[in-house]
Amino acid sequence: MIRVHIWNENIHDREDYVRAVYPDGIHGALADIFRDEDVRVTTGFLDEDEQGLPEKVLAETDVLIWWGHCAHDRVTDDTVSRVIGHIHAGMGFIPLHSAHHSKVFRALCGTTANLKWRNDDRERIWTVDPHHPIAQGIPEHFELDTEEMYGEPFDIPSPDEVVFMGWFAGGEVFRSGCTFTRGGRIFYFQPGHETYPTYKNEYVRRIIRNAVFWAAPAGKRTGIPVTNPPSLENN
Amino acid sequence: MIRVHIWNENIHDREDYVRAVYPDGIHGALADIFRDEDVRVTTGFLDEDEQGLPEKVLAETDVLIWWGHCAHDRVTDDTVSRVIGHIHAGMGFIPLHSAHHSKVFRALCGTTANLKWRNDDRERIWTVDPHHPIAQGIPEHFELDTEEMYGEPFDIPSPDEVVFMGWFAGGEVFRSGCTFTRGGRIFYFQPGHETYPTYKNEYVRRIIRNAVFWAAPAGKRTGIPVTNPPSLENN
Amino acid sequence: MIRVHIWNENIHDREDYVRAVYPDGIHGALADIFRDEDVRVTTGFLDEDEQGLPEKVLAETDVLIWWGHCAHDRVTDDTVSRVIGHIHAGMGFIPLHSAHHSKVFRALCGTTANLKWRNDDRERIWTVDPHHPIAQGIPEHFELDTEEMYGEPFDIPSPDEVVFMGWFAGGEVFRSGCTFTRGGRIFYFQPGHETYPTYKNEYVRRIIRNAVFWAAPAGKRTGIPVTNPPSLENN
Amino acid sequence: MIRVHIWNENIHDREDYVRAVYPDGIHGALADIFRDEDVRVTTGFLDEDEQGLPEKVLAETDVLIWWGHCAHDRVTDDTVSRVIGHIHAGMGFIPLHSAHHSKVFRALCGTTANLKWRNDDRERIWTVDPHHPIAQGIPEHFELDTEEMYGEPFDIPSPDEVVFMGWFAGGEVFRSGCTFTRGGRIFYFQPGHETYPTYKNEYVRRIIRNAVFWAAPAGKRTGIPVTNPPSLENN
Repeated sequence: MIRVHIWNENIHDREDYVRAVYPDGIHGALADIFRDEDVRVTTGFLDEDEQGLPEKVLAETDVLIWWGHCAHDRVTDDTVSRVIGHIHAGMGFIPLHSAHHSKVFRALCGTTANLKWRNDDRERIWTVDPHHPIAQGIPEHFELDTEEMYGEPFDIPSPDEVVFMGWFAGGEVFRSGCTFTRGGRIFYFQPGHETYPTYKNEYVRRIIRNAVFWAAPAGKRTGIPVTNPPSLENN
Repeated sequence: MIRVHIWNENIHDREDYVRAVYPDGIHGALADIFRDEDVRVTTGFLDEDEQGLPEKVLAETDVLIWWGHCAHDRVTDDTVSRVIGHIHAGMGFIPLHSAHHSKVFRALCGTTANLKWRNDDRERIWTVDPHHPIAQGIPEHFELDTEEMYGEPFDIPSPDEVVFMGWFAGGEVFRSGCTFTRGGRIFYFQPGHETYPTYKNEYVRRIIRNAVFWAAPAGKRTGIPVTNPPSLENN
Repeated sequence: MIRVHIWNENIHDREDYVRAVYPDGIHGALADIFRDEDVRVTTGFLDEDEQGLPEKVLAETDVLIWWGHCAHDRVTDDTVSRVIGHIHAGMGFIPLHSAHHSKVFRALCGTTANLKWRNDDRERIWTVDPHHPIAQGIPEHFELDTEEMYGEPFDIPSPDEVVFMGWFAGGEVFRSGCTFTRGGRIFYFQPGHETYPTYKNEYVRRIIRNAVFWAAPAGKRTGIPVTNPPSLENN
Repeated sequence: MIRVHIWNENIHDREDYVRAVYPDGIHGALADIFRDEDVRVTTGFLDEDEQGLPEKVLAETDVLIWWGHCAHDRVTDDTVSRVIGHIHAGMGFIPLHSAHHSKVFRALCGTTANLKWRNDDRERIWTVDPHHPIAQGIPEHFELDTEEMYGEPFDIPSPDEVVFMGWFAGGEVFRSGCTFTRGGRIFYFQPGHETYPTYKNEYVRRIIRNAVFWAAPAGKRTGIPVTNPPSLENN
């Protein structure tokens, strides 16, 4: 069983224009992806105790999914430090869409994670690494009728792997699905603006599902107890 | 179930000095690793039909383990081409020890794969990426009392990941466990000279075991049918 | 001074429809890039002695630019081996456009280098790594009114760096400018179909110019004599 | 001309045991490397105005060399932010030895940068990437009679390139010379404990010299004015 914690700043979700798309919130749509899987889902919100990311929840999380947009600055340094500590110790991390500018993702990248953006465009997503576990069951390309445009240059370190690239009708390109390793495995995935039903798209759902299985700590993937990570006392 | 094909040139194995170490051949010692696993093992030898690597066997192989040393030149271009075709289509590949100079590994690298070597040294293997699936269950370091020294510079492309590094008492270092991707996943692992009981070492066995699970085609790792790789007819 | 050898299969170039675009051949347009630089240019053609790539020319070449399309199969294994030997020893290599399918580039990649293609589309090239030496003087994006579309999935190993990405009006994306290292430095650049005046575009010219300076052997970049590469006699 | 700023926390340097080795301080020994080069050297210390890293100095620095050990915590967040801003904009950065634990390097890595350590060992440094610009003029290996042992696992993201690896007589290995890119180019180099005359070693000096030329902003390496990096106003 994989233990997934879905974190959502959960602010837009309370507005009518988002409720019209996601009546159960973005977190609800994300949780629904795992309905029939051997996955235990919990959720956390910014306005909860310890900002929805308490130590005892993180200690029992294999993969953390993160959705945030307008309140990155309200995530405290303590929360950031707690989350990053668990990623360094092997927890998987899947920042979605505007989480490119979350404090956690930026700190893991060591870059600005800046990009270009524009509202309302048609996106076609290309699978550039069809052999990658996250691409299984995904066609060569698929379309999202409306998404927020995120465009290059995307100021990130060279990803370990570029699994998906986005094409926008307005003329931009983007590395839409990228992997990184910082102790735990990280998969950034670009689609998912709050005003479009992106997380109901069957391929987007499958990508997030695959990513969770891919990002789970190594012991869950080899069937062998996880090696103790190197002790930190040495230096 | 993972389907593993163990290929051995099987020449040294017929000599007394190797039989003393590996009475069932090197392939026998490698097959034994999977005794209690959900793995189906087949073996192939250089002097068999289609050099022990017939199309119909490869078509039913998830991961190919390769041991060869003195007869690299006798592997025909047809065999090389057949094997590489399957790796490009997603088959995992685990070249061991002197397989660094096999035609298949060199062709996948695009470099000479040259290295330094010397007989009979003590090797200490360090786990440099303890979170990697292949490193699960492996301690921070372990020793092989006697191994063939393989030393840097090792003329390979920058690996995707360096999982293990070797230290030799005589003064050399080596990237002993490296991953690459060429459609399928590749893990090169340095220890395993035919005159030492390396493949009986519990950690070496576990590394090869883990590598097989790691290198299996993506569909086996996500539980989703493999995407058809891009058709080759386009260009 | 950098010594550049421009190799062209030089077949299309003799047809009127190409002469209309490139009266001095594609090699002539490429040579013209270095008119005012401290660069010595030589050229070689498929139908010349030793296929335009004789040992004594390669021995005095810092960077080899390669344009080929319809005659990849006529490049002999001896020629391929000679060229690759020099790249392994540090010579830079810049395969252009359809050279993705040249025997030399495929052998260096260890993959099929397959891609999607289609005639006549509008391409917009994005600079995704603006700090890269090859991107100096290049704007955030520029357009080629007509190019051949090359699209993902592009079956190459993960590049060391993706410097440029292409957007095509018809809906495709491509990693249009990628670097690799195989002893020498390699820069693949996608634009340059023989029927369009791509090599007259000021930005394309500057990219190729920058790439030559970037790909020159290390000693030319540090002002220190090149270290002897590791002797190959060891193994 | 390359403009190098050498930053030293300059604390140990005031003690007799270090003065015995480096009468002009570690910064003095580092500055001496560039005595006969077309390089302008400035120095900065922790106890100076703006911690020796004022905005107007950074604005005129091509490459920043960093030596720090016992006072990482006294470097303020403002200083860290100022330095990282310039690296993101293209400034080269060369953290030496215990600067692996500097706030700046850790922030650029996104990992703990932890490692093993032990005093007083003999180190042999191997050149694993002899074609790299930083390795020009460096032999296949060279020795430092006494250095502080730094050993794997070294908790860093997969480097872009591993140029040097260290072997220690006591049984450890280390990725001693590694490159990263975070806008500007970064080269971490392990040797250089304050009590040993490491920065007087001719090969160590040459490596640091080469690294400076390699890390200088791209425009200095191509002879073309630097492209304005992507404006940050977009997002």
